[in-house]
Amino acid sequence: RIMRPDDANIAGNVHGGTILKMIEEAGAIISTRHCNSQAGEPCVAALARVERTDFLSPMCIGEVANVSAEITYTSRHSVEVQVNVMSENILTGAKKVTNKATLWYVPLSLKNVNKVLEVPPIQYARKEQEDEGKKRYEEQKLDRLETKQRNGDVILPVINPEPHTVGYSQSSLIHLVGPSDCTLLGFVHGGVTMKLMDEVAGIVAARHCKTNIVTASVDAINFHEKIKKGCVITVSGRMTFTSNKSMEIEVFVDADPFVDEPRERYRAVSAFFTYVSLSKEGKPLPVPQLLTETEDEKRRFEEGKGRYLQTKAKRQAQMQQAAQQ
Amino acid sequence: RIMRPDDANIAGNVHGGTILKMIEEAGAIISTRHCNSQAGEPCVAALARVERTDFLSPMCIGEVANVSAEITYTSRHSVEVQVNVMSENILTGAKKVTNKATLWYVPLSLKNVNKVLEVPPIQYARKEQEDEGKKRYEEQKLDRLETKQRNGDVILPVINPEPHTVGYSQSSLIHLVGPSDCTLLGFVHGGVTMKLMDEVAGIVAARHCKTNIVTASVDAINFHEKIKKGCVITVSGRMTFTSNKSMEIEVFVDADPFVDEPRERYRAVSAFFTYVSLSKEGKPLPVPQLLTETEDEKRRFEEGKGRYLQTKAKRQAQMQQAAQQ
Amino acid sequence: RIMRPDDANIAGNVHGGTILKMIEEAGAIISTRHCNSQAGEPCVAALARVERTDFLSPMCIGEVANVSAEITYTSRHSVEVQVNVMSENILTGAKKVTNKATLWYVPLSLKNVNKVLEVPPIQYARKEQEDEGKKRYEEQKLDRLETKQRNGDVILPVINPEPHTVGYSQSSLIHLVGPSDCTLLGFVHGGVTMKLMDEVAGIVAARHCKTNIVTASVDAINFHEKIKKGCVITVSGRMTFTSNKSMEIEVFVDADPFVDEPRERYRAVSAFFTYVSLSKEGKPLPVPQLLTETEDEKRRFEEGKGRYLQTKAKRQAQMQQAAQQ
Repeated sequence: RIMRPDDANIAGNVHGGTILKMIEEAGAIISTRHCNSQAGEPCVAALARVERTDFLSPMCIGEVANVSAEITYTSRHSVEVQVNVMSENILTGAKKVTNKATLWYVPLSLKNVNKVLEVPPIQYARKEQEDEGKKRYEEQKLDRLETKQRNGDVILPVINPEPHTVGYSQSSLIHLVGPSDCTLLGFVHGGVTMKLMDEVAGIVAARHCKTNIVTASVDAINFHEKIKKGCVITVSGRMTFTSNKSMEIEVFVDADPFVDEPRERYRAVSAFFTYVSLSKEGKPLPVPQLLTETEDEKRRFEEGKGRYLQTKAKRQAQMQQAAQQ
Repeated sequence: RIMRPDDANIAGNVHGGTILKMIEEAGAIISTRHCNSQAGEPCVAALARVERTDFLSPMCIGEVANVSAEITYTSRHSVEVQVNVMSENILTGAKKVTNKATLWYVPLSLKNVNKVLEVPPIQYARKEQEDEGKKRYEEQKLDRLETKQRNGDVILPVINPEPHTVGYSQSSLIHLVGPSDCTLLGFVHGGVTMKLMDEVAGIVAARHCKTNIVTASVDAINFHEKIKKGCVITVSGRMTFTSNKSMEIEVFVDADPFVDEPRERYRAVSAFFTYVSLSKEGKPLPVPQLLTETEDEKRRFEEGKGRYLQTKAKRQAQMQQAAQQ
Repeated sequence: RIMRPDDANIAGNVHGGTILKMIEEAGAIISTRHCNSQAGEPCVAALARVERTDFLSPMCIGEVANVSAEITYTSRHSVEVQVNVMSENILTGAKKVTNKATLWYVPLSLKNVNKVLEVPPIQYARKEQEDEGKKRYEEQKLDRLETKQRNGDVILPVINPEPHTVGYSQSSLIHLVGPSDCTLLGFVHGGVTMKLMDEVAGIVAARHCKTNIVTASVDAINFHEKIKKGCVITVSGRMTFTSNKSMEIEVFVDADPFVDEPRERYRAVSAFFTYVSLSKEGKPLPVPQLLTETEDEKRRFEEGKGRYLQTKAKRQAQMQQAAQQ
C-alpha cells in the first residue's frame, strides 16, 4: 500500500512500527491460511515471537510498500514465516529492501483459545532446509525461556530529571484496546503491540537527542501473554545504552484487564529497540551519551554494550564472509 | 489485508466503500508505476473514471481481501486498469470473487498539476485486445461528456417528511480533507471520495428500509474536478428509484475550497449506487416503494427505472450468451 | 456519520471524546467559512474555548450522528458557535439529542499565525440576541483569565498506591502529533486534544470503579496555547472528587516541542470531566468513594464538591423553571 503522512514522522520517514505492523499482518495471514489448510478444527495463528530485524533503508511518504511472506519451517505446534518488505518509489521505479523479518506463529483453536493445535507439515525442497529450520526452532525456544525469567522489572518515575539521564527521556503511554486492534479470537494483533512499542521507543529516543530519529533495528521480541479486547495497556520505554551513533531503548508492555476480569496487571511483552539520529541529509549524527546514575542503570548500560558489541561482531563476520564469496 | 470491524456494518458485511477504496489504491499504484516507467517528467496518476461495478458476493470481517490489478489499455493520455477483488476465508480456504472493476487514470505532472503527460503504450498479445480497448475508450469518453452537463442539481432539505418519500431518507455529511486523504499532488484520492459516497448512500438506504443493507452495484463514476487538501466536502445522497428488491441512490460531492482560494463551491463528482436489503440469513428482502411527490422526483424515478431495466436486460443477455457457450 | 466499533467502548457506547471531536470539527468548519466570507486575508478559525457540555443520552455503534452548527454571536475577534448532536437509530428511526455545545473560535491569519484577524459581524433577528451574546462573551472572557492563573499544577507519580486513592487511578499518555491531527496552520485541532483528554479521563474512571463508564459532562475548556505538529503531548488525569454516582477527573495537557524548537514544555489545556458508571442495563451504579490522603487532595476534593453542588443547584433551578412554564 501507499505510505501516507500518518505513517511517517515530520521528516517524512515511515515509522518502524508501521512496517512491523504490516509484516505481522502478512505473517498472520499466511500462517493462519496454512494451519487451516487441512480439514480439522478451525484456528487463528497467534504471534509468538519476532526474530531480531534490521531496518536497512528508510521508507518515505508516497512510496509503495511491497510485503511478501513465505513459510520456511513448521514444527509440531509452530510455524516460521519469513517476511520481506521492499519499498518502491513508483515515480522513479527504484526498489530497495527495507527489511527482512522472521516470525513464529502458534495456531490457537477458534473454539477454545487455550488449545494449541497441530500444524500441517510443509514439504522442503532439500533436506538441509528442514535441518536448518529445526536448528532455528531450537534456538528460539531456548531464547524464549530465558526472556521469560527476565520479565519482572518495572519503570519507576523520576521527578525533575537532569538532561540525558535515563529518567529524563523515559516515557509511557496507555492505550485502550479496541475492536480493530484484535484478531478474530478477540486478542490484540502482535503488530498493533509492536507499533505502540515503536511509538514509545521513538519518543524516548527523540527526547534524548532532540533530533529526527529512525528505528535501526529491533531485537527479538517474545509474546508470552495474550492481551484481550477491552484491556488497558501501558507501554513504557527507557534508554539503556548509547554508542557514538545509536541508542538502545528497552520497552515493556503491561496489560490491565480491568473491566470484566479479576486478574491482576501483567507483563505481556518486552523488547529492545535501536534508534539512530539522522541529519536533514539523512546522515547519522552523533548521539549524546546516556548518563547513568543508579547501579541498575550502570548494569543495564553494560548489558546493552554487550549486545551492541555482539551485534557489531556478528555483522563484521557476515561482511567478511560475504566478501570472501 | 484482513477486514477489521471498522471496515464493516453491524451485521459484519464489509462496506462497499472500503472495497472501492482498496480497488482505487491498487489502480493508482499500477498506473502511476506504468506512467513513470519511461524516463521523463515524474507524474502521479489521477482517477478520471470508474466503470460500473457489481458487488457479486459480500465480504465479512476476518476475511482477507486479495486485490490484483492489470493494465488493459492505454490511450495517449489515459490508462485503463482492470482490478479484481477476491475474498478469502483463511480458516476454510474458500475464495470468492467480490468484484471486478475497470478504472481510467490520467497522468498529471508532479511539477505542474494542470499538465497531462503522455502515457507509454503497452504491448498487446493480440490485435483484437487493442481494438476492444479502443472501443471501450471511445465509449467512456462520450459518457464522460454527457454527465458533465447533468451536474447542476442540488439537494434541498425537507421539513417533517413522510416515511418513504425522497425527503425522508435524504442525507448528507461534511468532511474536512486531511493530509492522509490526499495523493502526493495534494488532491483527494478517488478512493477516499468513493468511500464517503458509499457511506452516505448506505445511510439513505438504511433510513428508507430500516434493515441491514449492502451495496449491490455502483454506476460509472466520473471525476471531473479535483479536490484539494484543506477543502470541506459535502456528500449528499437521495433515493431516486426502487424496484421490488433494490434501491437506487444518487450521490453528489461538492467541494468548498473555503480557506485559501477565491473559488466558489463546485460539484466534484456524482454517481448512482444500488443497494439491496438483506435478511439475517443473507437473503434479499422486498424494499418499500419510494413515494415520489414533485415532478422532478417522478422524472428521476422514471430515469432510474430506465437504468434498472437496461441493466437487467444486459445481464440477461450475458447470461443467455454464457448459457449458449 | 455512522458510529463504528472503534468509536465506542466494549459495551458499545460511543466515547464522549469521539463526539467532542465531531462537534469541534463542525464548529471549525462553520467559523472558518464565516471568517473567510468577506474578501481579505485568508484565515483559519482556531478553537479558543468550549463551554460546559452535558452528555444527555449515550450513542451506540451503528447509530448515525447528526451534527448541526450555527453561528450565534460574533465579537470583533471571536465567533460563538452552537453545535447540536442528535443520535439517530436508522433502523427504528428513533432520534435523541446527545448534546448541545457552545464553542468560541478566533480567526488566525494563514500567512502569519500570530495575527488575529477581524470577524465579519452577523445579523441578529432581534436586538436581545445580540445583547445576550455579548453577555455570554464577557462571561467567558472573564473565566478564561481565571483559569490561566490556575494552570501551574502537575501530577506526580505514586508508587504502590492503595485502591481508590488518587494515585491508584491516575493515568497519563503521550502522543506524537501527526499531520492528521492538525489544521492547515499546522496546529492540533481542538477536537483531537479533547478526544485524547476524554480517553485518559475514561481510563482513570475505569481504573477507579472497574465497571463500564461513560462521559456525563465536560466543564468549560480553555485553549490558551496552541500545539504544533511534531510536538509530543502528555495528557494526564487524576480523580478529584466522587459523589455517590459520579466521578470528577481533572485532565492536563502538556506540550513538549522537542524537535525543532528551543521552547520548554508548557501547559496547553486543562479541564474537568465527569463520568458515571453504568450497569449492563444502562442504569447508573454507585461509585466507590475516592480516598484522599494529602492536603492538596483534600482541598481538591472540596473544590470538586463545590462544583458538583453548584451544577446540581443550577440543574434543579432549570427544572423548576421548566416545570413552571
